[in-house]
Amino acid sequence: MDIKPSSQHGGDIKSFSQQIGCTPSEVIDLSSNINFVQPNITVDFNSLDISAYPTYEKLTEPIAQLYSVDPCELELFNGATTAIYTLFRHLNLNHCTLYAPLYLEYEKASRIHNYQITHINRFENIEQEVEKGSLIVFVNPSTPEGTFYDVDRLMKEWTKKECTILIDESFLDFTPFKSAVPHIHNYDKLYILKSMTKFYSSAGIRVGALISNQKNIQRIQAQEPLWKISQFDSHYLQSALNDKHFPMSSKKLNDKNREYLIKILENSEFIQKVYPSSSNFIMIKLKNLSAQEFQKKLIPYKIMIRDCSNFKFLDQRYVRISVKGKEALEVLEKAL
Amino acid sequence: MDIKPSSQHGGDIKSFSQQIGCTPSEVIDLSSNINFVQPNITVDFNSLDISAYPTYEKLTEPIAQLYSVDPCELELFNGATTAIYTLFRHLNLNHCTLYAPLYLEYEKASRIHNYQITHINRFENIEQEVEKGSLIVFVNPSTPEGTFYDVDRLMKEWTKKECTILIDESFLDFTPFKSAVPHIHNYDKLYILKSMTKFYSSAGIRVGALISNQKNIQRIQAQEPLWKISQFDSHYLQSALNDKHFPMSSKKLNDKNREYLIKILENSEFIQKVYPSSSNFIMIKLKNLSAQEFQKKLIPYKIMIRDCSNFKFLDQRYVRISVKGKEALEVLEKAL
Repeated sequence: MDIKPSSQHGGDIKSFSQQIGCTPSEVIDLSSNINFVQPNITVDFNSLDISAYPTYEKLTEPIAQLYSVDPCELELFNGATTAIYTLFRHLNLNHCTLYAPLYLEYEKASRIHNYQITHINRFENIEQEVEKGSLIVFVNPSTPEGTFYDVDRLMKEWTKKECTILIDESFLDFTPFKSAVPHIHNYDKLYILKSMTKFYSSAGIRVGALISNQKNIQRIQAQEPLWKISQFDSHYLQSALNDKHFPMSSKKLNDKNREYLIKILENSEFIQKVYPSSSNFIMIKLKNLSAQEFQKKLIPYKIMIRDCSNFKFLDQRYVRISVKGKEALEVLEKAL
Repeated sequence: MDIKPSSQHGGDIKSFSQQIGCTPSEVIDLSSNINFVQPNITVDFNSLDISAYPTYEKLTEPIAQLYSVDPCELELFNGATTAIYTLFRHLNLNHCTLYAPLYLEYEKASRIHNYQITHINRFENIEQEVEKGSLIVFVNPSTPEGTFYDVDRLMKEWTKKECTILIDESFLDFTPFKSAVPHIHNYDKLYILKSMTKFYSSAGIRVGALISNQKNIQRIQAQEPLWKISQFDSHYLQSALNDKHFPMSSKKLNDKNREYLIKILENSEFIQKVYPSSSNFIMIKLKNLSAQEFQKKLIPYKIMIRDCSNFKFLDQRYVRISVKGKEALEVLEKAL
């Protein structure tokens, strides 16, 4: 049986379970990149008053605090993907430079908003010269393999070429590394994207944040509708951000389980290369079999993985596997 | 004390309560147009799995059924206002015709997307000729006074002029009248907007629906991000739509309380005219005092009303008062 990727992003448990003939709750989803550790949520959602129009200060403030910016230096969106589409449209530039492979929605945003695209292969040619005035998109740590880059040297090249820069730090919270956020005060064409749903384990809530200097944020806000984010989502995230133990304990557990996952993968005869990762997922290069064939081998174990063949510069030999809980990884160990 | 309208739309209870020195829960909000009757919600929100990426079929299907369209004839947005902005941008026309007064965000959407605006005064000159190829915006029943119009005759003029038509039916569920939705099969430049938060008493959730023929919807979808709506919101609305008694009982209670509200207003010495309404709000024209002065008189009763002076063709003599529960209206009666 061939598993048809109904979703191009992975994480479509429902369709996978239908194809292999089990219930969604039986699936071991190693395809999606959502934190398997969840924050302690203390909201009683059923008692929330959701009849009134929402206001967002109580959500904006802790997010601003988390990323050490002023509330007027960020704008919230109903998900990071909406933020990407909005920024591409708002900037309205002619050309973008996508450091690939990267999150697929960047390609779509570029095409929809009529950007000419130059792809730069991060693995082979990261020093490639960029076009003057281009919109640079750099995901750090990068997907689908989780490399963290020290972007300072690249920034010099980009700023010299007067580029507008978008650094997508949606997975940075999983790492011990420093954000590029402070640079918004040194370079006025810099935007930082934060997805609030990956680290805070909540793809079902739709909140993403775009950070830049106050002037840029004001210009974006002037074109935005008043109400964008669900009160439920706002309260979920306020509570998640209030769990002060979560960042450290979640990072520790992810680090530990990532080590375990790497060990499993390195011991597998099917795998030629395990890529180093600072995030909550690992990319592998398969040996003599395709991602589809590899996926097929995992069906008896109800394990779902992410075929990476639709990423630029990758092909059917590449697969992404997420760091998950011990039990899930033990099933993977057994399978391999 | 003058009450500063911190929000241009009404419903900002927090700011009002701060200004008059009480808690938000003490405020009697007659300014916002959210249904005071709430559907029976049977979801246990705290047990929802919101870690996975959302899918929307289970929400799209009952909404499509409610409005007698095929699921492929509608697209969901995180609120009706987002739908408006998206449609203005997507259509990318030069000119729009706003039948005013109307929901303020239409002015903003027009300006942001560089539409030349012609306002037509619904009260005085509704038969005014429209410009060829214009984007017609007609809210039915209209805000802020709740008139339902039989648009069939207007439609003839609009279609003769090859206009693109947006009919905003966000308050139609409160009325006994028929939707313009079936016309999507007769005229291919017709869009119908439904806000799901007014009738279903949930401004804190962000869901709106745009209805048109399949081709138009596909063209919009091609430019939209994959995930837009919160899982919480989706489950709230699924449950609300599943309360089969709600539409009828809610309409009955609104009808009854509207009659009561009209009686209160007609007996008031401050009020020159009470406008007929088919919706859950009533517009009044004041006699010898301004909306601000009228609002001031209601402060001792902690009643908040909607100053309509920022609506096109209205001025400081106009106020909107919402149909609410019996107790709230009794306080208003006492105040007047």
